[in-house]
Amino acid sequence: GELKIDVDRPRRTGAAEAVFAAGKTPDQVVRALTELRNAHPELPALATRCEPACLEAVKAAFDGVTVAETLAVVGDFPEPSLGTVGVVCAGTSDLPVAHEALYTSRALAMETHLIADVGVAGIHRLLAQEERLRSFSVLVVVAGMEGALPSVVAGLTDRPLIAVPTSVGYGASFGGLSALLTMLNSCAPGITTVNIDNGFGAAQAALRMLRLTDQTKD
Amino acid sequence: GELKIDVDRPRRTGAAEAVFAAGKTPDQVVRALTELRNAHPELPALATRCEPACLEAVKAAFDGVTVAETLAVVGDFPEPSLGTVGVVCAGTSDLPVAHEALYTSRALAMETHLIADVGVAGIHRLLAQEERLRSFSVLVVVAGMEGALPSVVAGLTDRPLIAVPTSVGYGASFGGLSALLTMLNSCAPGITTVNIDNGFGAAQAALRMLRLTDQTKD
Amino acid sequence: GELKIDVDRPRRTGAAEAVFAAGKTPDQVVRALTELRNAHPELPALATRCEPACLEAVKAAFDGVTVAETLAVVGDFPEPSLGTVGVVCAGTSDLPVAHEALYTSRALAMETHLIADVGVAGIHRLLAQEERLRSFSVLVVVAGMEGALPSVVAGLTDRPLIAVPTSVGYGASFGGLSALLTMLNSCAPGITTVNIDNGFGAAQAALRMLRLTDQTKD
Amino acid sequence: GELKIDVDRPRRTGAAEAVFAAGKTPDQVVRALTELRNAHPELPALATRCEPACLEAVKAAFDGVTVAETLAVVGDFPEPSLGTVGVVCAGTSDLPVAHEALYTSRALAMETHLIADVGVAGIHRLLAQEERLRSFSVLVVVAGMEGALPSVVAGLTDRPLIAVPTSVGYGASFGGLSALLTMLNSCAPGITTVNIDNGFGAAQAALRMLRLTDQTKD
Amino acid sequence: GELKIDVDRPRRTGAAEAVFAAGKTPDQVVRALTELRNAHPELPALATRCEPACLEAVKAAFDGVTVAETLAVVGDFPEPSLGTVGVVCAGTSDLPVAHEALYTSRALAMETHLIADVGVAGIHRLLAQEERLRSFSVLVVVAGMEGALPSVVAGLTDRPLIAVPTSVGYGASFGGLSALLTMLNSCAPGITTVNIDNGFGAAQAALRMLRLTDQTKD
Amino acid sequence: GELKIDVDRPRRTGAAEAVFAAGKTPDQVVRALTELRNAHPELPALATRCEPACLEAVKAAFDGVTVAETLAVVGDFPEPSLGTVGVVCAGTSDLPVAHEALYTSRALAMETHLIADVGVAGIHRLLAQEERLRSFSVLVVVAGMEGALPSVVAGLTDRPLIAVPTSVGYGASFGGLSALLTMLNSCAPGITTVNIDNGFGAAQAALRMLRLTDQTKD
Amino acid sequence: GELKIDVDRPRRTGAAEAVFAAGKTPDQVVRALTELRNAHPELPALATRCEPACLEAVKAAFDGVTVAETLAVVGDFPEPSLGTVGVVCAGTSDLPVAHEALYTSRALAMETHLIADVGVAGIHRLLAQEERLRSFSVLVVVAGMEGALPSVVAGLTDRPLIAVPTSVGYGASFGGLSALLTMLNSCAPGITTVNIDNGFGAAQAALRMLRLTDQTKD
Amino acid sequence: GELKIDVDRPRRTGAAEAVFAAGKTPDQVVRALTELRNAHPELPALATRCEPACLEAVKAAFDGVTVAETLAVVGDFPEPSLGTVGVVCAGTSDLPVAHEALYTSRALAMETHLIADVGVAGIHRLLAQEERLRSFSVLVVVAGMEGALPSVVAGLTDRPLIAVPTSVGYGASFGGLSALLTMLNSCAPGITTVNIDNGFGAAQAALRMLRLTDQTKD
Ligand SMILES: Nc1ncnc2c1ncn2[C@@H]1O[C@H](COP(=O)(O)O)[C@@H](O)[C@H]1O
Ligand SMILES: Nc1ncnc2c1ncn2[C@@H]1O[C@H](COP(=O)(O)O)[C@@H](O)[C@H]1O
Ligand SMILES: Nc1ncnc2c1ncn2[C@@H]1O[C@H](COP(=O)(O)O)[C@@H](O)[C@H]1O
Ligand SMILES: Nc1ncnc2c1ncn2[C@@H]1O[C@H](COP(=O)(O)O)[C@@H](O)[C@H]1O
Ligand SMILES: [Mg+2]
Ligand SMILES: [Mg+2]
Ligand SMILES: [Mg+2]
Ligand SMILES: [Mg+2]
Ligand SMILES: [Mg+2]
Ligand SMILES: [Mg+2]
Ligand SMILES: [Mg+2]
Ligand SMILES: [Mg+2]
Repeated sequence: GELKIDVDRPRRTGAAEAVFAAGKTPDQVVRALTELRNAHPELPALATRCEPACLEAVKAAFDGVTVAETLAVVGDFPEPSLGTVGVVCAGTSDLPVAHEALYTSRALAMETHLIADVGVAGIHRLLAQEERLRSFSVLVVVAGMEGALPSVVAGLTDRPLIAVPTSVGYGASFGGLSALLTMLNSCAPGITTVNIDNGFGAAQAALRMLRLTDQTKD
Repeated sequence: GELKIDVDRPRRTGAAEAVFAAGKTPDQVVRALTELRNAHPELPALATRCEPACLEAVKAAFDGVTVAETLAVVGDFPEPSLGTVGVVCAGTSDLPVAHEALYTSRALAMETHLIADVGVAGIHRLLAQEERLRSFSVLVVVAGMEGALPSVVAGLTDRPLIAVPTSVGYGASFGGLSALLTMLNSCAPGITTVNIDNGFGAAQAALRMLRLTDQTKD
Repeated sequence: GELKIDVDRPRRTGAAEAVFAAGKTPDQVVRALTELRNAHPELPALATRCEPACLEAVKAAFDGVTVAETLAVVGDFPEPSLGTVGVVCAGTSDLPVAHEALYTSRALAMETHLIADVGVAGIHRLLAQEERLRSFSVLVVVAGMEGALPSVVAGLTDRPLIAVPTSVGYGASFGGLSALLTMLNSCAPGITTVNIDNGFGAAQAALRMLRLTDQTKD
Repeated sequence: GELKIDVDRPRRTGAAEAVFAAGKTPDQVVRALTELRNAHPELPALATRCEPACLEAVKAAFDGVTVAETLAVVGDFPEPSLGTVGVVCAGTSDLPVAHEALYTSRALAMETHLIADVGVAGIHRLLAQEERLRSFSVLVVVAGMEGALPSVVAGLTDRPLIAVPTSVGYGASFGGLSALLTMLNSCAPGITTVNIDNGFGAAQAALRMLRLTDQTKD
Repeated sequence: GELKIDVDRPRRTGAAEAVFAAGKTPDQVVRALTELRNAHPELPALATRCEPACLEAVKAAFDGVTVAETLAVVGDFPEPSLGTVGVVCAGTSDLPVAHEALYTSRALAMETHLIADVGVAGIHRLLAQEERLRSFSVLVVVAGMEGALPSVVAGLTDRPLIAVPTSVGYGASFGGLSALLTMLNSCAPGITTVNIDNGFGAAQAALRMLRLTDQTKD
Repeated sequence: GELKIDVDRPRRTGAAEAVFAAGKTPDQVVRALTELRNAHPELPALATRCEPACLEAVKAAFDGVTVAETLAVVGDFPEPSLGTVGVVCAGTSDLPVAHEALYTSRALAMETHLIADVGVAGIHRLLAQEERLRSFSVLVVVAGMEGALPSVVAGLTDRPLIAVPTSVGYGASFGGLSALLTMLNSCAPGITTVNIDNGFGAAQAALRMLRLTDQTKD
Repeated sequence: GELKIDVDRPRRTGAAEAVFAAGKTPDQVVRALTELRNAHPELPALATRCEPACLEAVKAAFDGVTVAETLAVVGDFPEPSLGTVGVVCAGTSDLPVAHEALYTSRALAMETHLIADVGVAGIHRLLAQEERLRSFSVLVVVAGMEGALPSVVAGLTDRPLIAVPTSVGYGASFGGLSALLTMLNSCAPGITTVNIDNGFGAAQAALRMLRLTDQTKD
Repeated sequence: GELKIDVDRPRRTGAAEAVFAAGKTPDQVVRALTELRNAHPELPALATRCEPACLEAVKAAFDGVTVAETLAVVGDFPEPSLGTVGVVCAGTSDLPVAHEALYTSRALAMETHLIADVGVAGIHRLLAQEERLRSFSVLVVVAGMEGALPSVVAGLTDRPLIAVPTSVGYGASFGGLSALLTMLNSCAPGITTVNIDNGFGAAQAALRMLRLTDQTKD
């Protein structure tokens, strides 16, 4: 068939391949996940950006499927052996993206914590979590609309901070562009950014960082 | 000549006309300021967006000219009788725009205060000013790059807050677009926004608000 | 649960929190409104950007729900004690946004008046309202397509004027961008602008201005 | 040489070719104007978008050169036999573009009138000209910043109205984009628009309209 | 009620008001058309941008309704007394917009002709119509995708030419932006442009031009 | 009727006209295909951008219809006499566009080969195909998201390479803009680009190139 | 040093590397050209996008330098053995980009011809060249402003056509974006496009196409 | 004075404040650097985005200033105790940004290595460095134009990869937008991105990652 999954990537980059389901038929997604499972039975396999019909097909085809919004995780979550990721988000509307980051992180063997509803317009709620924010190894900060949260959080901690803009908003948010530009232009040094709504990519980036720690232990 | 200044506007809107100097010859600006001075000798006359050559012409043509960046104020500042405006800006690079807001406010009879260097990446510097921030009648909050400052300030006070995006930044700030979108998308309710670098307009808006207070006293 | 409403904000900023329903499940919206009602039983609670299913859930969950387009107001409207807001809009198509501004203003204790169908292409209709326009404390001017109405109105009155661009239009209106840029670039000094379709934010800004008046009475 | 001027166009379209000087050397512009003069000695020849060095070269090469900003007219203006064009502009800063429209119109045998300083923020100045506005055959309305003037003027007259956005402005005017979008989205029916700063094109369009009148007389 | 139709505009501008149905309920549209019909029983009344449900309501409410895509014309078409409009379009996909221009023109008492399928990639088809193109008083040229047709047609005739970009296309046509920019940047002098898909506005502009002819006859 | 197909184009340009179905009714598409079939019975006729209803109508109207996504090919594929086209795509999600290129190429008498799943993030999969890549006469390289594949492939071969950006992606891919800009800015010299998702156009470009070869044989 | 020129590329892709001089010091450009000359003494070496100071340095460092605008060719032009390239451009302002295409083509062993001043607004000038246009193997069509020329030319010939948008224009040409979008959206099938002002890239693409012919002769 | 440097940030985030010199006078920059030096004599102080005049002022005011393009480092570089950063860039034109990343990294106590001239169009040059690429703790990958390099590098290593788009390019690179979008849309999972030309921010992000390693050693 036409499908050539990069089953060798885990060896090279240390992380399981995921299937990008957008633009694929449910059948193509199931076939791709099957290949990944066969190649790496010890790793869960992921599919991102699944439509409802695709999620149904995946749940029908495999046992032990965890679904978080448009993300499907096939297989058991591994032990969280790599360090802690704190996923922080401004409001409830950003939770779907936060959950994509959380479940991908867990599938990649990281321990995860969620801090929600700490938008910058109520700064004292955020400051009440200052101690806890400093306790994570890596921070994934998710925000839509004006996307200002990462700038403030980055001033409170010296940990790596991955900013995830979301498409939450309307009007001049232009589908997440507003939050994206905010994060790229942050005056808090050392913030890095991923694509709009890309909780999956943020988790993958966290993995690269925490594997670094892991290797220094060898 | 071709110049027809709206010298009657003060009666209608309570504020002196200002000359928008961009695209005008120094001579045209001086002629326009002269008309304004003649029509309203009791009010200072303003010219915004002046090039250096234009500022020189204005200084040569009138006594008592105050210059703040590209703004020229011709005539004495009136007594600050209308209330206090707190101009807050994130960093030193935003000062030119902050100064435009400050000097225009003073020319329009408002008392002004400046709080600089309180960017959101060092939130504790801002919180140290919380009391003072609450003491102003109106806030003008100036920020470039990611422009997040107004969102945080708006959560600390119930006063009217006019957000001024600046063109300070580079790359994906796209000449102030980033800060502008941030402010328009703020999740702190009740923020209003003016054009990029428009310190003049923010002061005019503050005037409209403080005149409101003034009239209730009548 | 994950929901941490900023119930303390009314004390700090003088206005009840509202729920931003976009991206939330009906259930999350109801839970959030419940928390707001419990914390501040004397204030109506608002939810903006509700989908039909969400509005149904809110109406089922509470008594005394007022719905205006995508806005839900839970609880009785307070006495209009804070001053008058004139909501002006260009055409019938802008009414949904105008209504969001109106009902939010009433929920925040302001007296409201509506002037519709006064687009700038028929300027005499607008001028016929000149007297009335001057009678309001604050003006909220709503316009789509070219969004020119605020510039003209601002030249007729010295009151604070909050411009609300709407997404009404087609083609090169680019979802409200055209009206937004018009308002930001207005040569009528002292106009401030909120996000596209953000009638809610305009009312919140009016509240900040009218509370100013209120406090001077103390 | 490489230059092949479309000297035959006057016969087909009734208007002399003009030289678009941007991106050409002064020498190329002079050569092109020479060809136009030779082919049509009875018509003035135009060059638009000339840099200062180019204008110098043109003035050195020909007698009887009229310069208006970046426009050079070579040869005598013909009798204004085709009808009247009213060029209206909002402020002094828009005069360069208004002048390009005016001088091109005169070179194309139209009678021209200028009304300046009638921006929409001072609507009474414009209304004072209502009678006069109705007296022209065709209107060319020039405006920068928010570009709202054409919408208002179009509601006052039934004559053809050509809207010319200018690049006057700053920040979110984005080089004239704001005024352009305003004009394209006008709710005053029957406005047509040309490129930003294109006073030349507006005059050419007026010519097409007034020649229509001319032909009906045949 | 809230509806204040500008029923007086025909006297001022010579053309009946039309209802812009986008964003209005079917009921609002019917009410607005009723007012227009009552004020000017001798003129057909138009509603543009009608959704199917709205068209149904209009057809149910009135006799003698003509529908062309999203346009509804209520009342008989007047005698075509004002001159001829040639509507030219590149391909069949642009026909809906061409039809909007055609039917609006007829409702405004102009004689109309349609030339379709003369895209610039088959230039000989267009040149075969050269004679006919020259026979119309005014040209409305409709094109999507690259929108090059008006530039070519304008070189073949000296008549007024109104260019209408359409949203036909995909990918980098960006909803008609490509065709719009092409037309604004045309190197054929004297082209004017209206909003994307705005066949209605093109007809209104043609009316302004042809009434000019009409008046010279007085 | 209004339909004037350019049936003469094959003689001039060597390729059958295709019907652009977007914005056309199924009936209009069938009629257009019928005309093409009548004029050139020896060539298959194509319709691109067909909606499902349109595909149904085409399948009902003709025998021997091949459908690939939104493309319909009516008539037998000719012998592949013109040379080989290698269609390369990054991932399964880009297959619909790749198939449009493939089937159009076959309808235009080219031999086609498909290489899928060779995205640049797994460069060794691509390099494993280096030999094969060099064996084609022309390459059509299809990629969405970041669209980097053509740059890498162009460095591996000296054959003409037509890059096709796809709309596959989300967030900051902005409907294919990201991939389009990547391809236009490629530092691999000699890449040319077509519109987003335009597999059809890529095949037509390949035809022009391979006919070149064909003619040198004459 | 830091400079690692890909001197091996000619073997892989059949064309000499060129130096992209933008952002490089004159010294870096000279060093890079030296390496290219040493590696391939039989091929001329190119540097594109050279500032005047850079061109001076190159002319000082080498004998036999040909300069065309910002392009420097070091070494003798080879025999034109590969076929003919017709470079067509709309107006004199597009000549710099046309020249970049011409001189690069000649440096890459192609025979070149120039047809200038055949803009679409004077279609008869273009049609007068129809025979000649069909006589070239490959066409490079250069156009700024509305960029319509490639669409028309592509309908007149079946040869490969590479469209080059230029930044010639003003206002809504947005630095060449207008012409670029026109070309990408062309309804003439089989046009391919390169970056704005990229005459160099067009020549490289022509080379890939003509080498195809060359190889079939083997 | 107005300057309030956040001298306490090193304690909170582990990295010295840097001065953003854009929009500041040379004098303001020197004063800010002086404060930083006084507060943290053991750390070098940085100023980014310095104009030439500003660099002169800094060099005059301090001993031991290192300048790399627009970056000034005041004070001795510390021992590289934190790990290795590999800075990879596509071409010589990207070196200024690569150098900003390098010198900032060294100022922040990281060991740095540079790999230049490994653009994706000559993939074998990059693959020749595969071993070395895997030897660094963190990768900073700098690329302009199409910005594809990070996608390819990320597929070769499991280390954290910070992508830095540069403004190198022309035409449709839109000042670095093209490279930025490429990096945000990368299908290589785990890439994070900083602002265009922001080598400084990439180094700060690397610091956050390597301090992570450092702390696990505690
Ligand atoms: N949501 C996502 N955003 C970005 N990249 C993704 C996403 N999901 C999967 N990928 C990557 O896309 C590639 C798989 O693409 P495919 O082979 O088309 O399924 C892998 O490199 C994934 O790591
Ligand atoms: N910087 C500015 N931004 C926006 N509007 C301004 C500015 N400066 C002056 N204006 C307004 O522009 C108008 C004057 O324009 P003009 O007649 O061209 O000088 C007045 O309404 C001013 O209030
Ligand atoms: N499709 C349209 N495009 C632009 N303006 C329109 C359109 N249809 C109606 N109008 C104008 O919009 C105004 C009516 O708006 P409304 O009062 O909201 O129905 C009138 O001035 C009409 O001439
Ligand atoms: N004007 C240009 N546009 C696009 N690519 C170019 C241009 N000039 C040179 N190149 C390519 O850029 C690469 C050289 O980049 P560099 O090593 O930075 O000089 C080579 O692949 C050239 O073929
Ligand atoms: Mg947020
Ligand atoms: Mg800031
Ligand atoms: Mg409106
Ligand atoms: Mg204006
Ligand atoms: Mg077309
Ligand atoms: Mg891809
Ligand atoms: Mg052109
Ligand atoms: Mg690069």
